[in-house]
Amino acid sequence: MSGRVSVVGAGPGDPGLLTLRAVRALETAEVVLYDALVSDEVLTFVPARCNRLFVGKRAGKHTMAQSDINALMIRLARFGKHVVRLKGGDPFVFGRGGEEALALREAGIPYEIVPGISSALAAAAYAGIPVTHRGISDSFTVATGHRAAGSTSSSHTRIFLMALSTLSETTVRLINEGVLPSTPAAIVEHGTLPEQRTITGTLQTIAGRARRAGLRGPSILIVGDVVMLHSQIHWRGEQTRVTKYG
Amino acid sequence: MSGRVSVVGAGPGDPGLLTLRAVRALETAEVVLYDALVSDEVLTFVPARCNRLFVGKRAGKHTMAQSDINALMIRLARFGKHVVRLKGGDPFVFGRGGEEALALREAGIPYEIVPGISSALAAAAYAGIPVTHRGISDSFTVATGHRAAGSTSSSHTRIFLMALSTLSETTVRLINEGVLPSTPAAIVEHGTLPEQRTITGTLQTIAGRARRAGLRGPSILIVGDVVMLHSQIHWRGEQTRVTKYG
Repeated sequence: MSGRVSVVGAGPGDPGLLTLRAVRALETAEVVLYDALVSDEVLTFVPARCNRLFVGKRAGKHTMAQSDINALMIRLARFGKHVVRLKGGDPFVFGRGGEEALALREAGIPYEIVPGISSALAAAAYAGIPVTHRGISDSFTVATGHRAAGSTSSSHTRIFLMALSTLSETTVRLINEGVLPSTPAAIVEHGTLPEQRTITGTLQTIAGRARRAGLRGPSILIVGDVVMLHSQIHWRGEQTRVTKYG
Repeated sequence: MSGRVSVVGAGPGDPGLLTLRAVRALETAEVVLYDALVSDEVLTFVPARCNRLFVGKRAGKHTMAQSDINALMIRLARFGKHVVRLKGGDPFVFGRGGEEALALREAGIPYEIVPGISSALAAAAYAGIPVTHRGISDSFTVATGHRAAGSTSSSHTRIFLMALSTLSETTVRLINEGVLPSTPAAIVEHGTLPEQRTITGTLQTIAGRARRAGLRGPSILIVGDVVMLHSQIHWRGEQTRVTKYG
C-alpha cells in the first residue's frame, strides 16, 4: 500500500478554527509530525491510536533540521503510512510548506495541502482588529519581525509574525523608513487562545509596553490605523473575558 | 430572549475549508444572511429549517446597501434570533466585517467574529503557489485590484483580490511603479472550487492570457517569483485534475 502526506495548517491555536479538511486528515492519520506552534487544544484531535512526533523548535533544545523532517515524512509514507504534517497557522505562510511539497514531489509521494487560518489574521480578528476597514485601510502586508515591507502610510496595515524577539528593532526600523512614530500599534500574544493578551500603544511606545507587560508567548505585531478599532470591536473581551491592554 | 449575531467567514468556496466554529454557528442559526461569494457547496451546511436571505451583489441587480444589511441584522437579533452573517473568505479581509461589528456594538447586540480562510491565501495554495517560500519570498501584500502596495521587488509577493475587472490597469500600474514586466504572475479563477482554473504568465502577458482564456469568475492575481513554484507544487492537479494554465 502506498502512503501519503497531508501538509495541514492547524490554525492559530483555537481548535474551533480547525477546518473540516484538517479534522478529516487527522481522523485517518497514522503518524502526526507536529510543530511547537501547534496548540495542545488542537492536539486533542489526534486519535489516541495515532503516533505523534514532535519535530519543532523549543527553547534550548535541538531542533530537527528541515531536511531530516522531509526525510522522515518520506520514509513513513514509503512504509504505507498516512502522515499528517501538522503546522501552526497556514503551511504556506512562513510555514515552509512549500519546501516540504517540493521534497514530497521529488520523492514521488502523493500529498495534499490543507490551508489553515493564519495567525496573522486570526490573532488580529480575535483582538477586534480588522486588517482592512473601509476608509481606514485597504491593503495589508505580512512579514516576519526580521523584515519590513509595504508603504509607509498608516492606512496600510502591517502585520509581523514572530514579532517579539525583534520588536525594538522592527519598530525603530519602521520609524527610520518613514512610518510616523504616532502610528497605532498592537501586540497580540497567544492569539485566539484563552490566555490571549492584547497590548496597544504607538509605534514609539509599543516595545516598552510589551516589555513591561512581560510578554513571552508567540506574538504578532500590528501597525496601522486599524489598531484604533480594537477599543470598539474587541468582541471576545465583550463576550468571554476582559481584553487586557495597556 | 435576546438574539445575537455571528459574523462568519465562509472561506474561499471549498466547504472542506469551513472551520468548526463556522459549522457550529450554522447549526444553531435561525437566519443566515449571505453574500454572492458564498459558494453553493457551503450553503448546504445551512439547516433546512433556517431562513436564508441573499444580501449580496449580482450582476445587473440591485444590491442591498450596507446600512440596510446592518439594520436587518439588528432587527432580527432584537426579535431574539441567532443571525449568521455569512461572508465569502474572511470577514475582516475586505469583508466589511469591521463595519458590521461597529454597527452591532452601537446597537448593543452581542456578536462574535468567526475568521475564515481568506481566498487570497487559499486560492494560491490550491494552485500550488506558496505566498512565502524560503529564498524566494519573505513577505506578501494583499490588496484589491483598485490599489497596489508593497515593495517593487519580485521577492515580495503581491496578491490582489477581485482582480479581474481591473486586471489591465493593475498590471500596467505595477510596471509603471517599477515592478519588472518579466515578473511571474498568475490568475486563479474560482479558487478551491472544482472548476478552479490557473493561468500563468508574466506581469506583461497575464492580462492578455486571462482575456483569451475567457475568465469571468471570482479571481485573484498573484505577482512575484513564488508563482514559478506552481509548475512544481500544483498538488491538486496531481491528485484530482489537471490544472489548466497557459
